[in-house]
Amino acid sequence: MAVKFAKRMSKLQGSEIRELLKLTQQPQIISFAGGMPAPELFPVEEMKKVSVAVLDERGTEAMQYTTTEGYEPLRVQIAERMNTKNGTNVNADDILVTSGSQQGLDFAAKVFIDEGDVILCESPSYLGALNAFKSYEPNFIDVPTDENGMIMEELEKILATTDRIKMIYVIPDFQNPTGRTWPLDRRHKFMELINKYEIPVIEDNPYGELRFEGEGLPSLKSLDTKGLVIFLGTFSKIFCPGYRLGWTCAAPEILAKFNVAKQGADLQSSTISQMEASKFMDMYDLDAHVDKIKAVYVKRRDVMLKTMEEQFPEGVQFTHPEGGLFTWVILPKELNAKELMVKCLEKDVAYVAGGGFFPNGGFENTFRLNYSCMPEEKIVKGITSIGEVLKEAMGVKNI
Amino acid sequence: MAVKFAKRMSKLQGSEIRELLKLTQQPQIISFAGGMPAPELFPVEEMKKVSVAVLDERGTEAMQYTTTEGYEPLRVQIAERMNTKNGTNVNADDILVTSGSQQGLDFAAKVFIDEGDVILCESPSYLGALNAFKSYEPNFIDVPTDENGMIMEELEKILATTDRIKMIYVIPDFQNPTGRTWPLDRRHKFMELINKYEIPVIEDNPYGELRFEGEGLPSLKSLDTKGLVIFLGTFSKIFCPGYRLGWTCAAPEILAKFNVAKQGADLQSSTISQMEASKFMDMYDLDAHVDKIKAVYVKRRDVMLKTMEEQFPEGVQFTHPEGGLFTWVILPKELNAKELMVKCLEKDVAYVAGGGFFPNGGFENTFRLNYSCMPEEKIVKGITSIGEVLKEAMGVKNI
Repeated sequence: MAVKFAKRMSKLQGSEIRELLKLTQQPQIISFAGGMPAPELFPVEEMKKVSVAVLDERGTEAMQYTTTEGYEPLRVQIAERMNTKNGTNVNADDILVTSGSQQGLDFAAKVFIDEGDVILCESPSYLGALNAFKSYEPNFIDVPTDENGMIMEELEKILATTDRIKMIYVIPDFQNPTGRTWPLDRRHKFMELINKYEIPVIEDNPYGELRFEGEGLPSLKSLDTKGLVIFLGTFSKIFCPGYRLGWTCAAPEILAKFNVAKQGADLQSSTISQMEASKFMDMYDLDAHVDKIKAVYVKRRDVMLKTMEEQFPEGVQFTHPEGGLFTWVILPKELNAKELMVKCLEKDVAYVAGGGFFPNGGFENTFRLNYSCMPEEKIVKGITSIGEVLKEAMGVKNI
Repeated sequence: MAVKFAKRMSKLQGSEIRELLKLTQQPQIISFAGGMPAPELFPVEEMKKVSVAVLDERGTEAMQYTTTEGYEPLRVQIAERMNTKNGTNVNADDILVTSGSQQGLDFAAKVFIDEGDVILCESPSYLGALNAFKSYEPNFIDVPTDENGMIMEELEKILATTDRIKMIYVIPDFQNPTGRTWPLDRRHKFMELINKYEIPVIEDNPYGELRFEGEGLPSLKSLDTKGLVIFLGTFSKIFCPGYRLGWTCAAPEILAKFNVAKQGADLQSSTISQMEASKFMDMYDLDAHVDKIKAVYVKRRDVMLKTMEEQFPEGVQFTHPEGGLFTWVILPKELNAKELMVKCLEKDVAYVAGGGFFPNGGFENTFRLNYSCMPEEKIVKGITSIGEVLKEAMGVKNI
């Protein structure tokens, strides 16, 4: 057989994270690799009542096709939640329900990108987004960042000197992979630049509600006066990922294109999942549930950072996120996190090497750590093991 | 705002069927437009027990991320079902769970089609597939058909004289929109040609199990000796569409590419939906459920065909499907089904005009009728109303 695949397929490869997920399903592995929420916090008992209630009250509707834009009462709830949490002023008609926010990423590139068009993103950026975008054969320019996220002077230079920029992809809140958050002045400066150049922005916000400390910041969408920001939200981190429910919020002209993309991609997201998520919010207090999640994650973050401070050798840097799921580790330049990963796996610990988060390669001396889905004692044990590997690699004697 | 969309978006428009779906949700409308299964047959009571059982037994797993290929026990059940129903010899590793078979259509074009490549399909073909493919900017050649499906001599001519054919899309069983089925000799001849030219085939089979009469025929996949056939299956018509569960069955090299596409598109299909569908098959008899569906649909088909024979004027042709959901109506050439649709809607009856099912236009004198989701008395009433419109248009006196 000599089947010929589309050109784009040669640029795509399976996500290291998805492959790792298989490996890390082995029970002895302490995994800081995925971006998985803590499963012990899922409202399982509540969902038993919710699913019976949905099937009792509207069973045949729940199992039938529905409209592409999604279940109306859920879209009303999403819009209200955005207005409360993200400072927007939107309504149900501005919302398209998607199968996780990942699907919104695929649609963004489908809607905006022709082969050879340029996408700007943070350096580093979310691997799963870069992979989704690659299907549409863009060129990437990753904008330099510091501890406060994207550097606006660098962005301005690139905007002023680059042709064919068709969209900008950013995660301003507790970024994946770095955990960094953009301060208010950068958000304002960013919107100023965007309004000047009129480039669509994909604001990916899966972690915004998981703030442990410090003050909440307005979403880019809430600062958007020209309808240029496309906001991607998800229930994966505040409720659960297994239902595959996210949403896109955008100006009508843009959302209509996303709707057409959705029709071709899978007609609609699961009717019953949408009705169950909606019913959960009717019957229970999602805010209280999010508080429960945050209380657990902040402790895990604290334990991870404290253990890193104690166990990682000098010369290793890492971020101190105020929320979200990740911290980001920068090793001395000569070290390779992919190579060290092999040694960590020998000690039954996993992380994700950082190179894949840079669309144009390099930065092999970085890795991402997730603290949300491991209990505290495993965090201590796993980070201590990574510390041993790092000390050995850096020629530091174990004490 | 002057946002620039990708070139592909100018070729895409919202599906007429999805738009009609909104209209036909009005209760007074007798709709033969959608391809919706009969909701009153959905196993709602059973699914209450199933969902509680899944959450009781493996609740946290059900709400968490899973692997991209899908829930292993479900893939085992799908492979076994295909081997029984479709005459294949496949196993779980040959299956990728998708969000409806619609998602498999999107992936097929993503995996095989560069801009300007040629897709062959039946004339007419499924509108939703054509729309999904259009995102990847192919050219279509629709192969002439007769009452037995695709005409192999015509296919052979096209294969012999056309460059850049990258895939062939077919629905050999109870085709959408015509209801036609390919006989055995055509299936063999088709595979002979495919093997000679080594072109990947997308065999879309949502309706195969809904055979009311006559003998079942082997799937193309079961006749495939070179790993060229990609089989798309779905639970939408034998269980329910609201869970958005379908699958792709293909040779390892091809399925690996579909898996990469799935990672970018939405990471995975709903974990809990997959576990619930699997559990339903464990706890209940899906075959018995399909028998129940067929018993209802065959009566509806009979009533529709009988009423058409009685009420449609001479000169109007229609197909006599042995299974599936649809019959296809061909009017005299001078009539326009889209225009007549307006008159039908005035009588509160809806169908889908046929022009959209032809990728290169024309054939406005055709329309598709669905008989699966209206009770018999409404079928009689609705078809009688369409008959009145047709008689008026054709200058035939109502008796």
